[in-house]
Amino acid sequence: EAAAVRAQGEAVRRLKQDKADPDEIAKEVAKLLEMKAQLGGDEGKPKFVLKTPKGTRDYGPKQMAIRERVFNAIISCFKRHGAEVIDTPVFELKETLTGKYGEDSKLIYDLKDQGGELLSLRYDLTVPFARYLAMNKITNIKRYHIAKVYRRDNPAMTRGRYREFYQCDFDIAGQFDPMIPDAECLKIVHEILSDLQLGDFVVKVNDRRILDGMFAVCGVPDSKFRTICSSVDKLDKVPWEEVRSEMVGEKGLSPEAADRIGEYVQLHGGLDLIEQLLQDPKLSQNKLAKEGLGDMKLLFEYLTLFGITGKISFDLSLARGLDYYTGVIFEAVLLQQENEHVEELVGVGSVAGGGRYDGLVGMFDPKGRKVPCVGVSIGIERIFSILEQRLEASEEKIRTTETQVLVASAQKKLLEERLKLISELWDAGIKAEMLYKKNPKLLNQLQYCEDTGIPLVAIVGEQELKDGVVKLRIVATREEVNIRRESLVEEIRTRTSQ
Amino acid sequence: EAAAVRAQGEAVRRLKQDKADPDEIAKEVAKLLEMKAQLGGDEGKPKFVLKTPKGTRDYGPKQMAIRERVFNAIISCFKRHGAEVIDTPVFELKETLTGKYGEDSKLIYDLKDQGGELLSLRYDLTVPFARYLAMNKITNIKRYHIAKVYRRDNPAMTRGRYREFYQCDFDIAGQFDPMIPDAECLKIVHEILSDLQLGDFVVKVNDRRILDGMFAVCGVPDSKFRTICSSVDKLDKVPWEEVRSEMVGEKGLSPEAADRIGEYVQLHGGLDLIEQLLQDPKLSQNKLAKEGLGDMKLLFEYLTLFGITGKISFDLSLARGLDYYTGVIFEAVLLQQENEHVEELVGVGSVAGGGRYDGLVGMFDPKGRKVPCVGVSIGIERIFSILEQRLEASEEKIRTTETQVLVASAQKKLLEERLKLISELWDAGIKAEMLYKKNPKLLNQLQYCEDTGIPLVAIVGEQELKDGVVKLRIVATREEVNIRRESLVEEIRTRTSQ
Repeated sequence: EAAAVRAQGEAVRRLKQDKADPDEIAKEVAKLLEMKAQLGGDEGKPKFVLKTPKGTRDYGPKQMAIRERVFNAIISCFKRHGAEVIDTPVFELKETLTGKYGEDSKLIYDLKDQGGELLSLRYDLTVPFARYLAMNKITNIKRYHIAKVYRRDNPAMTRGRYREFYQCDFDIAGQFDPMIPDAECLKIVHEILSDLQLGDFVVKVNDRRILDGMFAVCGVPDSKFRTICSSVDKLDKVPWEEVRSEMVGEKGLSPEAADRIGEYVQLHGGLDLIEQLLQDPKLSQNKLAKEGLGDMKLLFEYLTLFGITGKISFDLSLARGLDYYTGVIFEAVLLQQENEHVEELVGVGSVAGGGRYDGLVGMFDPKGRKVPCVGVSIGIERIFSILEQRLEASEEKIRTTETQVLVASAQKKLLEERLKLISELWDAGIKAEMLYKKNPKLLNQLQYCEDTGIPLVAIVGEQELKDGVVKLRIVATREEVNIRRESLVEEIRTRTSQ
Repeated sequence: EAAAVRAQGEAVRRLKQDKADPDEIAKEVAKLLEMKAQLGGDEGKPKFVLKTPKGTRDYGPKQMAIRERVFNAIISCFKRHGAEVIDTPVFELKETLTGKYGEDSKLIYDLKDQGGELLSLRYDLTVPFARYLAMNKITNIKRYHIAKVYRRDNPAMTRGRYREFYQCDFDIAGQFDPMIPDAECLKIVHEILSDLQLGDFVVKVNDRRILDGMFAVCGVPDSKFRTICSSVDKLDKVPWEEVRSEMVGEKGLSPEAADRIGEYVQLHGGLDLIEQLLQDPKLSQNKLAKEGLGDMKLLFEYLTLFGITGKISFDLSLARGLDYYTGVIFEAVLLQQENEHVEELVGVGSVAGGGRYDGLVGMFDPKGRKVPCVGVSIGIERIFSILEQRLEASEEKIRTTETQVLVASAQKKLLEERLKLISELWDAGIKAEMLYKKNPKLLNQLQYCEDTGIPLVAIVGEQELKDGVVKLRIVATREEVNIRRESLVEEIRTRTSQ
């Protein structure tokens, strides 16, 4: 193993001499350090590494406070739209996930075979949802599901990309009239992104049928639809020239077909573009494209009634990676702002996405019975990253508890009295804390309130006990008032209700 | 493989002839069926099994509604006591979990080695908490953590025992004056179990130091403390005679020592018992036992101030399985009720437990620095099982959404008007649904409200549109009133606020 470390070190030196990509070097150095850590320190014995697994993180109280805010906004929206909630296990039978994710299947985490069933961690919430519907023979449900999913990807944690991350999914399953549920999903994205005040955004919309029709009229052979679709999917990250050379070079598409695609994928707009394409001599001859365009028109009419077309863009370059989509697809991206936060926002990219997948449930049903579905997934980790950075920059102090009052004492030997009072407050539903010391100094108790944002202090003292009162101190103003013990709960409630 | 199935079938027949344990037979039959399923149906091709992994379950909307109620009660209590919240990844480095759980380590789920680090699913929330404290050098925190943990145990799902289950943990870490945080943990158990109205309960309390002192004065050799402690831990499930014969037969303890233990472990009581044992000529000579008894006395004094000693029992037979406890330990059990629910409650057992673990954080700190901790874990799955069964028995109808109003129409061709109205309501924060049909029948719309418990229907019709009103129907009373469109939001709010 020591030899392996040396070899790795050698590789790094060679990379440096060749003036290789600095990212490559950084990667090799990281590998080297990891190997060294595993080999142990100077003593030669293996050393324990105190860390979370690669691509994962702990959430401390401050991060959790932000997370709760975001979750609350999202859950409120889902509930506003009448969704029920379900939960499924974190792992599924391996075969449940098999054949659902195309090339991305290699990113699935498998559990070790310890006897019994072969299991994998869920890769998203959509496949478990489809399994749930088929297993319980549910043909009609509107549900949300907020849970962690797992991908053995190369994490880019500063940009909010992790191996363990939350997804917040809202889906509508059932046979309904066209585009009504689809329009609601877009309305939800619009509501959530507006509510979270992340800055300007646009929701790109396309349809798999329009894409397939487009490929057909451009002269892409049927067998190459999926792989050419994957190439198009890269257009949000790499320029057209690169995508084109991948299509022609690696995937063997004719240059003429690629150029025809190149013209279409530049197009984006609204109802006007839909009308224009419906008149397009080639596209309008293709059955799939025509169906897709017809539905897209209907969708935009509904979105007009919702008053949200200003932030929706019909975009022929949008392809989405996942195999299972069959109709409308969409993706919300934050727009770069020309202000102080510009650096942090670069590369944040997609914060929500989704689409229609009418065939997935049928893959699980023993008789292949289909349940049409459409859904949206909110990319919460990226939203966290933005809000976390924003909060750090702003120096806003965020409370991590909801404690209303600290039960304190000004003199010694009053632990018992503090315990009695705090117990009364807890039993009355007041959020109360005390220091876990027999004889804490008053100054330390007041300092604790300053540090944690507790607004009130209930001070017991010899004299107050005799008089049947408690001294209530308002931390912000340093004002102190004596309150009769039997009125204390009410007084605290009044003073801490907004 | 077919031969394996036959062999398994043979084993089942043999078991039956030998009049073996019916549980054994059931287990063998299950194995057989699983093998058969894997081999495939009559066609001979492997068949896909539509199920969740063994020992896991989905939570449908109804179960989630119960789960939310329970979580809310627990989280309110944790927040009332001023706890912050944290979250950690679902898996940890394998070595983080190594050497923390004694014999139970075999129940840990490992992930497959797919290159990179060796990972395991968390077994509880306590070890990740200790890792978090050591890693972030935190010496002082009061936090809760609600998350799923994983144990490759033999599930008994009807009794609420699963391989994937939630834990709700509250812990206080830091160097404080004795027994103040410990008393608060017991207060929390008392508050939560009272709040959830699960029926009568008792919280058994003991101390690892009292147990160890007791073993010493009974003549148990130091090397046998842990294994004899494991035997004592079984006393809540098996009678003393069996535990005794395990101690003497399997574990090689002298019969005299076992009998002396037998006398102690019968004892349970309150302050009086503590006083009695402090006078016990043998026990009072043992340093550990004396320390433990002194702290137990202090604990009971604090619990008296909290007014909860009525449900607390100092019980010398309580041992707790986990290796890491160092001081006070406790466990809450529901008491059998002599009423209709008696069958369901049998075997529910422990619903909360915890204790002091002063050495665990030090195991992770590179310099072995200790952070004293005490905490409680609420056994939520068993509580769910009880509430679920109770709800089923009661026929109480439980709502799974919070929808306030259904936007409906009485005539055809009003989809656009419904979309416009529902959009206005959503934007005003009203929880609203509509049927995803172009022209739904009014009867179906009203039926949907009956089925799902939506209390109001906002009906748009030609005449109402002309008059600038919406017809609001109260589902329960069938009353209908015309409301001016600009007052509709306010009217819905008023009618749906309790």
